[in-house]
This record gives sequence, C-alpha cells and structure tokens, in this order.
Amino acid sequence: MHYRNQFTLLLFALFVWSNFTYAQEGIDLEIMYKIKNEGMRNSQIQELSFHLTDLMGPRLSGSTNLRRSREWTAEKFKEWGLENVKIDSYGEFGRGWDVKKSYIAMKDPYYASIIGHPKAWTDGTNGLISSEVMLVDIQKESDIDQYKGKLSGKVIIVPTTLSTSPAFEAEARRLTEEDLEARKAVTIGGQGGGRYSPQQMERMRLQRELDAKVNDFLLEEGIALRLTGTRGNFGTVFHTRAGSFSKDKKKTIPEMEIALEHFGRIERLIKNGQKVTIDAEIEVEWLDDDYKGYNVLAEIPGTDKTLKPELVMLGAHLDSWHAGTGANDNAAGVVVMMEAIRILKSIGVQPRRTIRIALWGEEEQGLFGSRGYVQKYVADRQTKDKKGEWDKISAYYNVDNGSGKIRGIYLEGNDQLIPVFEKWFEPFHEMGAKTITRRNTGSTDHVAFDAVGVPGFQFIQDPIDYGRGYHTNMDLYERMQQGDMTQAAIIVAAMVYNTAQRDQKLPRKSWD
Amino acid sequence: MHYRNQFTLLLFALFVWSNFTYAQEGIDLEIMYKIKNEGMRNSQIQELSFHLTDLMGPRLSGSTNLRRSREWTAEKFKEWGLENVKIDSYGEFGRGWDVKKSYIAMKDPYYASIIGHPKAWTDGTNGLISSEVMLVDIQKESDIDQYKGKLSGKVIIVPTTLSTSPAFEAEARRLTEEDLEARKAVTIGGQGGGRYSPQQMERMRLQRELDAKVNDFLLEEGIALRLTGTRGNFGTVFHTRAGSFSKDKKKTIPEMEIALEHFGRIERLIKNGQKVTIDAEIEVEWLDDDYKGYNVLAEIPGTDKTLKPELVMLGAHLDSWHAGTGANDNAAGVVVMMEAIRILKSIGVQPRRTIRIALWGEEEQGLFGSRGYVQKYVADRQTKDKKGEWDKISAYYNVDNGSGKIRGIYLEGNDQLIPVFEKWFEPFHEMGAKTITRRNTGSTDHVAFDAVGVPGFQFIQDPIDYGRGYHTNMDLYERMQQGDMTQAAIIVAAMVYNTAQRDQKLPRKSWD
Repeated sequence: MHYRNQFTLLLFALFVWSNFTYAQEGIDLEIMYKIKNEGMRNSQIQELSFHLTDLMGPRLSGSTNLRRSREWTAEKFKEWGLENVKIDSYGEFGRGWDVKKSYIAMKDPYYASIIGHPKAWTDGTNGLISSEVMLVDIQKESDIDQYKGKLSGKVIIVPTTLSTSPAFEAEARRLTEEDLEARKAVTIGGQGGGRYSPQQMERMRLQRELDAKVNDFLLEEGIALRLTGTRGNFGTVFHTRAGSFSKDKKKTIPEMEIALEHFGRIERLIKNGQKVTIDAEIEVEWLDDDYKGYNVLAEIPGTDKTLKPELVMLGAHLDSWHAGTGANDNAAGVVVMMEAIRILKSIGVQPRRTIRIALWGEEEQGLFGSRGYVQKYVADRQTKDKKGEWDKISAYYNVDNGSGKIRGIYLEGNDQLIPVFEKWFEPFHEMGAKTITRRNTGSTDHVAFDAVGVPGFQFIQDPIDYGRGYHTNMDLYERMQQGDMTQAAIIVAAMVYNTAQRDQKLPRKSWD
Repeated sequence: MHYRNQFTLLLFALFVWSNFTYAQEGIDLEIMYKIKNEGMRNSQIQELSFHLTDLMGPRLSGSTNLRRSREWTAEKFKEWGLENVKIDSYGEFGRGWDVKKSYIAMKDPYYASIIGHPKAWTDGTNGLISSEVMLVDIQKESDIDQYKGKLSGKVIIVPTTLSTSPAFEAEARRLTEEDLEARKAVTIGGQGGGRYSPQQMERMRLQRELDAKVNDFLLEEGIALRLTGTRGNFGTVFHTRAGSFSKDKKKTIPEMEIALEHFGRIERLIKNGQKVTIDAEIEVEWLDDDYKGYNVLAEIPGTDKTLKPELVMLGAHLDSWHAGTGANDNAAGVVVMMEAIRILKSIGVQPRRTIRIALWGEEEQGLFGSRGYVQKYVADRQTKDKKGEWDKISAYYNVDNGSGKIRGIYLEGNDQLIPVFEKWFEPFHEMGAKTITRRNTGSTDHVAFDAVGVPGFQFIQDPIDYGRGYHTNMDLYERMQQGDMTQAAIIVAAMVYNTAQRDQKLPRKSWD
C-alpha cells in the first residue's frame, strides 16, 4: 500500500507536468522534411562507409591507420564547409602499433592454414618460427615446476574452457514490438543482483593471481609464441590486447588469437599424444613519435546571439580493433554522425546553438577520447570541478551499437525527457523509431558525459550482425547495413537540430 | 473421372497389399534394445570423430590424408573383428595433390591478413609473389584486347556478382512437425518446372564459352595468381577445384579462393582507383605414384545358409574438400556408419544376410567410388548389363547430410517400402525419427545404387550448421553434433539389421 500510494501521486504529478512540457516541444516540419529529403536523395553513406573501412583499414588506437583516418575525416569536414575543424589532443594515450606481417599454419601432423591474428600491442617473433606446440596446463602454482627449462623457444597453448555450439540463433534480427515494449520496462531496485557471488569473486581473484604468475614464468622461460583460442566460432576471432600500450611497457610474450576450431584441433591432437608443429611469424612496428591521443572536432556555428555559445554535440568513436576494419564497431557510428552533420550543413540550417561533431579516439581501450575531452573541457569526474563547457552542452548524442536502424533512445534514467523525445520522435514513427526508455545502456562514449551530469544519449538500434561483428576479424564493410544507416543519420540530424533550437537546454539529472 | 477411377483402384490395391506386407515386418525387440544400449552406453562417436577430422585432416580425393584415412579405417575394422576387410580399387581416379604452404595478405594500402585457400588441384606459385592486383573485366571477347601484354606476373581478380546479406536466418535448426509433413508431400508431375529457361540456358552457354576464352588468355599472358571470391560470408570459404585431377592435365593458372569480404575489399579499392598489392604463396605437391581410386570394405558375414550370399550395405564417403577437415561432409556419415557396424558386431548379431560397410572414395568429384563399385560389381548403368551383386544386394543405406539427427528416410519413389519402414521406424519415434517420404533426395552415393535399380537410401536429417559447413574451410570437428550422431548410428544399425533378417529382399522399383 505504501508504495502504491506514492506511485499514484507520482503518476499524477507526471501527468500534469508532462502535458505542460509536451506542449512546448515545437517541431519544424519543413526542416524535418528537408532532412529526410537530403538524407534519402543525396546520401553519402556508401562513399563514407567505403572510405572509413576498406580504404582507412583497421583503426587501432595509436596506429598509422587511425592517424590517416583523423586526417581524412578532418579534410572531409573542411570540404563540407564546417568550421573550427581541428584534431584536438586530449592528453596522453600511449604507443602506436602496426602489424607488418602475420602468418600461422600447422605443419604436423599435416599442413593446415590457421585463421589467426596477433593480439594488439603484442611483440613480434623476430622472423619465422617453427616449433612443436607444448600444452601448458597449470592449475596451481606448484604445477609450474614440471615445465621449468622446457619451454624456451617453444609455441605454447594453455587449455581453453571455451566451446562452440550449433548456430540455432540468427546473427541478425529486427526488434519486434514486444522487444521494444520490454525495453521500456524498469525494475525498481535494479535489473537483478550482482553478476558474481563473493565466492566467485574470490575464485576469480585467485585465478588472476595465478595467471599473472604463469605469465611471468612464460616470459622468463622465453617462449616463442603463445596461442589463444577466442570466443566466437566459424573462424570468427574476437580480439583483445596483449600487455600494454603504455610508453613504459616492458617486453611481453608474442601472442596470437586463433579461431576456436583451430585452437581446439591443436589442443585435442596434443591431448591425444600427437606431435603438433606450427610455423608462425609476427612482424610489428612500434610508433614512438607521438604518444598523444586525439579527437577530431568540427562545427556548424550557432546563430542565436544568446544561445550560440551553447552546444549540441554528436559523436562516435573513430578507433577500432585491428583485424577487421571496425565496420559495425564503429565506422557505422562515425558514418552516421558525419552524414547527420553533412545533411544539416547541406540544407543550410542556421541553428540557434552551435552544433559540434566529435570523432573520438581510443574508445576501445577505455573511452580515452571522450573522457579526455570531458576532463579537458567539461568537468572533472572525480573532483566534480566544472569547466567551461559544463553548463553549455545541452546534449551529447552517440551511435555505437552497429549499423542497425534506430528504433528509439535510452534516457539514462532522466524521466524528464520522456515527453520531449516522444514529441521529437513523432515524425519518425513511420521509419520504425518510437521507443523512449528511461533505461541505461552502457559501455560507450555517452557515458563520459552522463558521468558528469551532462545529458548523454545512445540510441536503441536493431541488432544486425553485431554479435559476430564487434571486435572481430569479420567486422568488415559487408556488415554495414547502409539502408539502416541512412535512416539513422536522418533521425540523428533531426534530434540534433531540435536540441539546437529548443528554448531551454535539455533538463538534467542532478549531479552536484 | 478417368483418373479418379484408376486412383480408387490403386488405393484399394495398396490397402490390401500394404496390410499384407505390414503384417510380415517383424521387429526383434531384444535386438533393438541391445542396439540402443550399446550405442548409448559404449559410444565410440567421439573417438572416431576426432580421428577422422583432427587427426586425418582434410581428405581430398587422391591426397595423402585420404590414403592415411583408408589405412586407418581398414585397421579399425580389423581391430573390431570385421571380416573381408579390404582397400578395393574401383579403377582410375587421377592425380593426388597436397597443399604444402598457403599464404596470402594485402600489403597496400595497408597490411591485412586474408582468409583464403588454394583451389583444389591448382598449381603452385613458385615461391612468394608480390604484385599489384589487376581487375580484369571482360564482358565480351573484344574486351580481351585492352589487357594484352599487361598481365604477365600479375595477381588478377575478375569482378564478382556474389554479395552478402545480414544473417537473419539461423545456420542450424530442428525440423518441425510441419517441416516433416511437408517433406512427405508429392507433387504429381514433378516439383516445379526446369530451373532455367531456354534463353537462360543460351546465355549460360555463351558465358561458359567466354569464360573458357578468358581462361586461355590469362594462361597465355602468364598471370601469377587469380583470386576468386566465394559464396558464403563471415570468412567462410566454399571450395571448388581449379582445372583437372586427370593424369593428362595441362598446366593451369594458380588460383586461390578468398573470403568474399576480403575479395570485396580488393575489388572496391581498385574500382575507386586505389593501388592494391598482394603477397601470396602456394606450394603444392603432386602425387603421381598411384592414379587409382579406392573404397574401404568390411563385413559381418551372413549366417543363413540360403541368404548369406545376399548383402545389406551401408556406407558414406571418406573423401572431403581440402581446407576444413570434412567434418559434416562427411566424416559425420563415416563415423555414423562405422559406429553402426561396430554396434552390430559388439552385440554379436548373427545376421542372415551379409552386412557390408563401404567407405567410398572420391564422392566429391562425382561419386567416383560408389559408381566405380557399382560398375565393377553390380551393374552397368548405360548398357544395363547386370553383374554378380545385382540381385544380391537387398538395400544400400547412406548418410551424407551432416551430423544432424535422423528424422526419417527418403524412399526414392519406391512406395512399396512405405509400410516396411513405417514398421521399422516404430521403435525410434521416441528419438524423433518417423517420417517416411517417397520423395527423392540427390547428390550422394545412394544414387549410384538407385541408378541401377538397387534400393539405395539416404536419411532425412536435421540441418545442423550444414549450410556453413559443407565444402568449406569451417567444416571442422566442432560442427559435428555427437549426440545427434549417436542417435543416427543406432537407427542405421537397426535398419541394417532388419534388412538383413527380412525373409525377402526389399521390393524394388522396375529397372530392366
């Protein structure tokens, strides 16, 4: 009863207030029409997608290709007539790293190609190595002893707990009405308990300790190469990094991530007493000329005398993992955001507030670019010191959930925005976008803004090949659904425009 | 009316006869129990699967690994106490071919690994080649002129018409009741018209003529390597062969099949005016010491004085394509058939007729092994000359539709068998197998028997990862569903046993 009474009151308050707010959200239907028209008739999605994936290639943080991509996108912004285009350093990132050669194959018991890639920031092998593969199975510290003095110059594997299963689920799907409704539901008290029990946490801590000791041991022994199986099957390799990109990084073990099926074959052969030999070569190049990290920024300046120092931002991360071309993750987001601002510029909007696009660096390594930007210009997340842009940014919009259509928006718990976005999404119901949820969604650059109390949003998107796409060798141009991206760019352009024109900045959650 | 009267008569005749036949199909429930028990308790599926895929490797027709596999399976049959084990030549096949090295990567505009494999029976590259990629776009014969003298030593691609689409369909599924019912339906007059119109046939003929001319031109020019994109996406490469395995084969162009996404990238880059360079190496070894093809045969001899010269056969093809390990296609079938005969031997059946297993060679290149066997021992398909085994083989059972569960059987139009198999499948309804369809299914070794009027059957199986598995680099151990294969081996053992014990041979379709 207690809760029910409170809930009734809340509903009533929400009703009164939402009707008030709802009334004030104007939509300029002429501009909405022009945005749709420009996005559909003169789409640059295909050209941008090609350039960012096929031509720029994988854009690992700090790599040569990420540098090329910064230059290319900045040039594109200038070509489109955007202003204040700059490649802006947010501070230090670390070492750049390029793969110059990668080869791996099984030689015994028979020749077989292996799908594999060096882990990011791994050291090279100093030429072609040819070695028997040793299975190193260390369950407890004392197991290390039996391998002492035996591993120098060898290729090793550690048994995997990963397994494959038949693909009964499709990789791509459209969210149904039911899915979308479910996404609105909010569970009071959070969405379930913590993922791990204290006992599990302790086991994981001990495992990490043991892993670190094993790693030190393997380094000491001077193994030639470690092979790791990755989650994913059908030859899709998910990527992680080996060691550190820090400029003070010490030497690490050369490591390759290989297709789980190819890893499984080696493991099963050795466990059945068969000799397996591997030929492999990794050649890498370290870039030590510039440790800084960068974002690419560009603007359509505001025109309202009072409001023009204020900002509406849109962005996506330009960096990716290193074996695909970072297509769904996140050339798709970059292309959508670039296209959105191109559309606005092309139709000649004169926004009241300034519209600023940001292409972030180093998201995949921990949101470095967006957090660095926020730290430099917006606020300090720890000390809560506000900087110049804190009370100027009305909202930040992000796309980083692949190339699927926009179906709605996550409000990060900010209920006040429900009536605003309900109104703003009205012209896009016909395009399948209408779901406003107060839920949070995580793990990408809008979080950097949300963390300092500035409204930061990520859209709800159809999950198209994202599970096989993100962080994999198969995240390539073909994964990008260009029709879907055309829709997304139009909707982003509209949201950005509406935010730029609104009398007030968007209401915020409390932060101080 | 004419048809209706005939149909009524037919129905009546069928009713009388089927009740007669039905009554005589005895099932020995004790043996059925023992088969299930042995198959479930002492299954060798896992060990056999490992040996045939991981350990034997790809088993391309004529290759070293196929030779090893023949030896290993024959040894296994002897170990199990089967009799008349032999590696039996059916005649000439052609040259063996092994891959000794395969490497391909893009060097410009940036380094990127490429998933690719030499086409079967391609020639090698004579060491590492490094070349710009030329796009050769020949739509009509006169287009050839513009490339004359320009392609020597170059890597070339020909534009592809293949494309990828998002994976909205799952790779694996269980057949539903509805699917199974649909599979029983028979369309009088065939299942739809011919696939191609005369106009299409003519266009295809002209295209083939042009392709042959282009091929001759490329060979003359002395190109270093041709890259082909294949159907399939997410890095799955489907295989075909280049040129011929004939012992009289002339020199061919070295060819590699690469992942469609990687092919697409090269094609798009070149079309956009970018220079693409490739490093590649193919090293192959030709086996010219034995051009014969072989099947592996073994038996549980019959014990009935009158019936023991008669045969029940079961089989599957031992050969595969060359970049995976031929797991679903068709180590799965071989393992199921080996396990079925092992079960029968283990429980000590004393069959009336002789049970003979055959592991066929060279199925993938045109049913060479089974057709060769039939030609040698059963009958001549063309002349209709019958040989010794023609009236001795009661039935041939085949498994070659992947590792999915058996759900029923195709009767190849032989309606007389409906009541027989309805009865025989009764003990397996609980395992999901019950659908008897008079429909045909094609493209594997039972066709060789059916073609000479000897009952040859393939089972209805759940399609588990078969679409991504067959003829691909991803047809590996992990694709095999060992629980499903356990079920399949039990059912095959039961069908074979029932066929061996039946008073009469199975009724046949007319052939003479």
